[in-house]
Amino acid sequence: MIKSRAAVAWAAGAPLEITEIDVAPPQAGEVLLRVVATGVCHTDAYTLSGDDPEGLFPAILGHEGGAIVEAIGPGVTSLAVGDHVIPLYTPECGKCKFCLSGKTNLCQAIRGTQGKGLMPDGTSRFSKDGKPIFHYMGTSTFSEYTVLPEIAVAKISKDAPLEKVCLLGCGVTTGMGAVLNTAKVTPGSTVAIFGLGGIGLSAVIGAVMAKASRIIGIDTNPAKFEIAKQLGATECINPKDFDKPIQQVIVDLTDGGVDYSFECIGNVNVMRSALECCHKGWGESIIIGVAGAGQEISTRPFQLVTGRVWRGSAFGGVRGRSELPGYVDRFQKGEIPLDTFITHKMGLKDINHAFELMHEGKSIRTVIHYDL
Amino acid sequence: MIKSRAAVAWAAGAPLEITEIDVAPPQAGEVLLRVVATGVCHTDAYTLSGDDPEGLFPAILGHEGGAIVEAIGPGVTSLAVGDHVIPLYTPECGKCKFCLSGKTNLCQAIRGTQGKGLMPDGTSRFSKDGKPIFHYMGTSTFSEYTVLPEIAVAKISKDAPLEKVCLLGCGVTTGMGAVLNTAKVTPGSTVAIFGLGGIGLSAVIGAVMAKASRIIGIDTNPAKFEIAKQLGATECINPKDFDKPIQQVIVDLTDGGVDYSFECIGNVNVMRSALECCHKGWGESIIIGVAGAGQEISTRPFQLVTGRVWRGSAFGGVRGRSELPGYVDRFQKGEIPLDTFITHKMGLKDINHAFELMHEGKSIRTVIHYDL
Repeated sequence: MIKSRAAVAWAAGAPLEITEIDVAPPQAGEVLLRVVATGVCHTDAYTLSGDDPEGLFPAILGHEGGAIVEAIGPGVTSLAVGDHVIPLYTPECGKCKFCLSGKTNLCQAIRGTQGKGLMPDGTSRFSKDGKPIFHYMGTSTFSEYTVLPEIAVAKISKDAPLEKVCLLGCGVTTGMGAVLNTAKVTPGSTVAIFGLGGIGLSAVIGAVMAKASRIIGIDTNPAKFEIAKQLGATECINPKDFDKPIQQVIVDLTDGGVDYSFECIGNVNVMRSALECCHKGWGESIIIGVAGAGQEISTRPFQLVTGRVWRGSAFGGVRGRSELPGYVDRFQKGEIPLDTFITHKMGLKDINHAFELMHEGKSIRTVIHYDL
Repeated sequence: MIKSRAAVAWAAGAPLEITEIDVAPPQAGEVLLRVVATGVCHTDAYTLSGDDPEGLFPAILGHEGGAIVEAIGPGVTSLAVGDHVIPLYTPECGKCKFCLSGKTNLCQAIRGTQGKGLMPDGTSRFSKDGKPIFHYMGTSTFSEYTVLPEIAVAKISKDAPLEKVCLLGCGVTTGMGAVLNTAKVTPGSTVAIFGLGGIGLSAVIGAVMAKASRIIGIDTNPAKFEIAKQLGATECINPKDFDKPIQQVIVDLTDGGVDYSFECIGNVNVMRSALECCHKGWGESIIIGVAGAGQEISTRPFQLVTGRVWRGSAFGGVRGRSELPGYVDRFQKGEIPLDTFITHKMGLKDINHAFELMHEGKSIRTVIHYDL
């Protein structure tokens, strides 16, 4: 049992408490990680708010980390002490029906226990004063020390700065991957990206990489347009500037609709707009945002019968252990401008302020450095 | 102007009147066809019922024909008198943005006028006592003589029996093509087909051709199971036999869901079931059926974010002039059991009886022979 500084979510809606917790040693097939830095993502805020029906408390949130292997449990063969890693909320066991299909990154090996806030053996490694604290998304990077299954850890280059590539653990990979892996946007395509937060801006980067000819950013907050254009959006529009539905605006702008659209918000009405702004005959819309509990999408089936395709993407369709290291390498080569995303950095003690900045729309990403 | 026997839909909900009409000669880019045989399809019945908000009256219905070129208008180069042909409600101009995209069969060259029941020059070739009668779906095969644009006519082998391959003009191609062209079902896949009418049975044939390992037919009328199995369905289930939703039944039957599903009814609730019975991570659902006016599909976006894909198919994604002749050849080689579909044949004078048989669920397809 080791002591670890952590930000504990004791209850929905309450601020996180910065405190010291106990972390049990890694069991068979598990590793102990020392988290060097972690992003603060909207999904953490969603669960903390209490709106997430699957949210469990008390818990250690956080899922966008950069870390170093501190210890390995029995039977761990693919990782060694000192390895630099990114924790994966979508693991890759390589053995389940999903991994073996070659068609999806949604490994289901530990889904049952992960969804219950527990390690694969059905217990937690976190506690305080002897009372267990739940894991979160299988990662819990808001604790300086955290325990993960070996299959949920991507080993990356030791040269990469963990305080930056931690963002590849969720948001940036999610947006880029949706464009590159899920949609497979082709050169010369027209693209519409709904919502210019971290995910949407990452989708812009992906669209630039895919050599899209036209990248239309859509947001009701025009303050986001400058950075979107800096990253490669060719034009940005605000639905509030038009009387007609935004899908009609885009169809008119693009001679019939875009080739690909991406919903990066989690709003079911926007999901419909994103589908319906696609070109008849071939336009594909990809849902990335996570909608509120129980909400539904709808459209007229004619939209699909006339050739549009509706799909979704989770973690950008990226297989964490086999593909994420390549994303880190692309960052190292200068292809992924992570610095543009990092608007704030601070120590763990200020993490509640990071949530405030996010709620107020003042940050793209705040990175928590455990050494600050 | 020539005289032609025809079944005229004077008004919504009324029986067709078998009568003689006047057919004007083909204009530039048009051809006069003598229809040898025509299928009677649910879409004809839908429009005749008055439920089709785009239905126009009076009109000559019918869109599933086998015909012979009787005369050609000025400028027609790809067809000659005596050619055997299938009229196409989805033309293929080869020049519009859609045709040139290589991504869709939805040629839009004449969509505007076709939707208005008119030829591309904005007039009708049909009249009775000097009063114009509308065209329907650009084909109007319920008249022995009909006029079509050259781009809406597929030239086929003269060896093929027109009274059988007429079914390739709509239903059979729609179902088979959705499996082979739109979904591109791979060998060994599991497939669920909702609705075992003409389209659904054609989808069964397509799934057999695609070497699907398991083909599950779903219908609330078990009388259809025998023919479905005869065509290659490996099992058939009736939603009425279960307390739980049919999508859950299929997920349980298939260890997580099917690889592909097809909705062949036009029921928006069934469309949802078809999507949700697909396997997480990769299952694709294809909507073929045409829903009632204004009806909408819905689901939780989580269904898509976790890897299912929702798409649609019109005329099986088949490019009529370039690909339909190949379907005729496949029939000639014995690969498409059209005879199984033809449960009734009769003369034009009995066409109202064909509609009755269809409404009563007693026919798969009735073929009207103009020489009977």
